Amino acid sequence: MNNTNWKSTENLSMLADFYEFTMANGYLENNMGDKIAYFDMFFRSVPDDGGFAIMAGLEQLINYLQNLKFTDADIEYFKSKGIFGNKFLDYLRNFKFECDVWAIPEGTPIFPQEPLVIVRGPVIQAQLIETMVLLNINHQSLIATKANRIVRAAEGRAIMEFGSRRAQGPDGATLGARAAYIGGCVGTANTISDREFKVPALGTMAHSWVLMFPTEYDAFAAYARTYPEHCVLLVDTFNTLKSGVPNAIKVFDDILKPLGLRPAGIRLDSGDLAYLSKKARQLLDAAGYEDCPILASSSLDEFVIRDLIDQGAAIDSFGVGERLITAKSQPVFGGVYKLTSIEDKGQMINKIKVSENVGKITTPGFKQVYRFFDKDTNMALADLITLHDEEIDESKPYTIFHPVHTWKQKTLTNFYAKKLLVKIFDKGEKVYNCRNIEDIRDFTKIQVDTLWDEVTRFVKPCTYHVDLSKKLWDIKNELLIKHE
Amino acid sequence: MNNTNWKSTENLSMLADFYEFTMANGYLENNMGDKIAYFDMFFRSVPDDGGFAIMAGLEQLINYLQNLKFTDADIEYFKSKGIFGNKFLDYLRNFKFECDVWAIPEGTPIFPQEPLVIVRGPVIQAQLIETMVLLNINHQSLIATKANRIVRAAEGRAIMEFGSRRAQGPDGATLGARAAYIGGCVGTANTISDREFKVPALGTMAHSWVLMFPTEYDAFAAYARTYPEHCVLLVDTFNTLKSGVPNAIKVFDDILKPLGLRPAGIRLDSGDLAYLSKKARQLLDAAGYEDCPILASSSLDEFVIRDLIDQGAAIDSFGVGERLITAKSQPVFGGVYKLTSIEDKGQMINKIKVSENVGKITTPGFKQVYRFFDKDTNMALADLITLHDEEIDESKPYTIFHPVHTWKQKTLTNFYAKKLLVKIFDKGEKVYNCRNIEDIRDFTKIQVDTLWDEVTRFVKPCTYHVDLSKKLWDIKNELLIKHE
Repeated sequence: MNNTNWKSTENLSMLADFYEFTMANGYLENNMGDKIAYFDMFFRSVPDDGGFAIMAGLEQLINYLQNLKFTDADIEYFKSKGIFGNKFLDYLRNFKFECDVWAIPEGTPIFPQEPLVIVRGPVIQAQLIETMVLLNINHQSLIATKANRIVRAAEGRAIMEFGSRRAQGPDGATLGARAAYIGGCVGTANTISDREFKVPALGTMAHSWVLMFPTEYDAFAAYARTYPEHCVLLVDTFNTLKSGVPNAIKVFDDILKPLGLRPAGIRLDSGDLAYLSKKARQLLDAAGYEDCPILASSSLDEFVIRDLIDQGAAIDSFGVGERLITAKSQPVFGGVYKLTSIEDKGQMINKIKVSENVGKITTPGFKQVYRFFDKDTNMALADLITLHDEEIDESKPYTIFHPVHTWKQKTLTNFYAKKLLVKIFDKGEKVYNCRNIEDIRDFTKIQVDTLWDEVTRFVKPCTYHVDLSKKLWDIKNELLIKHE
Repeated sequence: MNNTNWKSTENLSMLADFYEFTMANGYLENNMGDKIAYFDMFFRSVPDDGGFAIMAGLEQLINYLQNLKFTDADIEYFKSKGIFGNKFLDYLRNFKFECDVWAIPEGTPIFPQEPLVIVRGPVIQAQLIETMVLLNINHQSLIATKANRIVRAAEGRAIMEFGSRRAQGPDGATLGARAAYIGGCVGTANTISDREFKVPALGTMAHSWVLMFPTEYDAFAAYARTYPEHCVLLVDTFNTLKSGVPNAIKVFDDILKPLGLRPAGIRLDSGDLAYLSKKARQLLDAAGYEDCPILASSSLDEFVIRDLIDQGAAIDSFGVGERLITAKSQPVFGGVYKLTSIEDKGQMINKIKVSENVGKITTPGFKQVYRFFDKDTNMALADLITLHDEEIDESKPYTIFHPVHTWKQKTLTNFYAKKLLVKIFDKGEKVYNCRNIEDIRDFTKIQVDTLWDEVTRFVKPCTYHVDLSKKLWDIKNELLIKHE
């Protein structure tokens, strides 16, 4: 790989659960490979008990699907297993992706139960891609969602993603930085994410820089001479208030002032950030550096940041590491991929997975998701999962009802409704242009702003309405009764 | 990339915190690039409050270091930033890795504070590799440690790694499966980890397979005909005891029996696994399938598995997904990389980072780690961090003491002592042969067996002794006093 387009040219076709291949071979052996199947990818609960998540990872899923192919070495591998038929090996050799795919664009707020990705195609293919559909959307939606929480907690102060060293593998760092940017971070420490995805990389010095010089002052002075216009000094190597900040001020005076330059900041990386930032602010202000920003890092997340701000911490921007890049408080986005329908002689046969755990019962059918917005405020009112070809008449009131507690009804008026699922592949051909990352990041911000405060609250948010259309509810109910 | 040797040929040189590059440029500008520096990578606490961790990720770190180089495009990227000097750009253009590296081999039980990796070399290089040293060792040690906990909880029953779909990116899945195998899992669901790392891939069917056929019986029968010798049936799509297990038995009778074959298993994936497995066992036994294994999966971890076993669950092997592949209960291995010494005109100048948080104070000096074993039992007695060239005289008693509470002393007799850190690179040349993964996995098992039960306990284990030699303690203490 040439260091361009991270993962987009890499062959990840073999990154699939082994059972995808045993099933694929089984479908062929049973002459069912061409049977048309529909799968939904959806999730069941929002991480951190939040009110919504942010869709991300679609671009990498698209890259994977465009590059889906099997090399001779792959086919040799399967042959060596002794359980795959020649029909299957030939099939892999001539593999060509032929599915239709719909997905919700990156940056969109998403809710439990609604399909984020729908795949329609020969079951052998629609099944094969399960692992990577889930892996890509689960990972990046997890990080984008966490990043968005942290960004919102900072109330306009900048959040930098600093977690590469604690990420779960190189992709965890690199794609994680991409997802964090989509969620609203201003940049990353990871250089390759800048190079590959144009996520701005930023960074200054480590404690080791300070230790490499005879004194802290010498270290700061050397840095200021090297980067006079980008001079951010890390002030906690020895003692923040007694040594770090005074030395920084001295260097600003001695080196930047004669050049007519202002400092780019100081960074606090340990100790009590509320106390230290306020004291550091006083020292800087007293020395005439009221404009010198204070950056802070050290085990931050949305709750610590909110508390620091509540306590009047004088912090202008935050670097967030491990708790963001691994979504430490809840490091799993539990998306699933479920069969919803098959076509048999032109007929749709809807499918349901019943479970002793009612939360795990699936919703059958080929679907679309509508988001209703208030015409006057443009605020999001509710989402409605419908059959794929249902149209909403915006000129009439529309009554939605809770899919379990059906007496809970709500009539919407004065709304407009937008389809969330857009077509990505048509019979294996890509028909969607990925947005650039700046546009996705802007889109996230705009879309999150359409959610009421009740939904965006960090703790115990209100549950946003995600209802089923009457037609879809009838189909589900009928199948449930049949299975009892 | 050709799908061989995952990541080993990929250029990850740009996966580094941006400050590594700004510092590197700064060292060159200040004519300090060649100054010899020593860095330790170590961690401060064991995930899940466990008694030890498992070292992993070294092979990928070695691959990275062997491939460290910068392309013209990389150099163009830095040039475009407008803050890097020509000296630095030339340096990158002619980059050749020249450091000495020592590390603890993969599979070794490791403890807080001891150096896992030591890097000695020109500071510009030794600093540059920080992010990837940490990322590789942090990620895989995290997963190997979690896997080992889960494997030990299963008391000899097999653990399969099933988490690809919930992993944090493709590497999270693929390298995670490698680390899980090192920790003691018997295999993975991820096909590419088999292909690349010889981690055995296993898998059978999803619920969608069952739903694709008119009836559950038809689905099982088709599978049994396709894979008569590897027939594992997923029995919980509709109703495990009323439908799944009876249909499985009928298929074993109708299809396997006439072929003279025995079933490979049934798999439970929902419901109460203790209850269902015992009932399923009774049904299978009554039908003459006492030898049919029962596999179980569904939100498992070491605590759930231990409870299931305590309650007499009739489960022969476990598939563990998201809680293993993300180390969900504590998804961060907090390794750090700290400057410990520099050489100045042939003199060692030891360095310390003082912190208001005493746990964050570093230990200076160029080190070795010894593990003391009892000569009779071969059990591990304690680890001792020494200066690199200190030798232990095994013929004499050796008194170790606690590095903080120094009155806590212990005299070891009848021991032998092994050096844990081995040389990996000598002036940039690899001088270490990575073991194959089977050997690493065996080594893990043997080494974990040298730890007392007090140390391997899941909850509130005893703290294993990791002490400093008198010489090293003196150096640290002297620097601490100097900094007060």
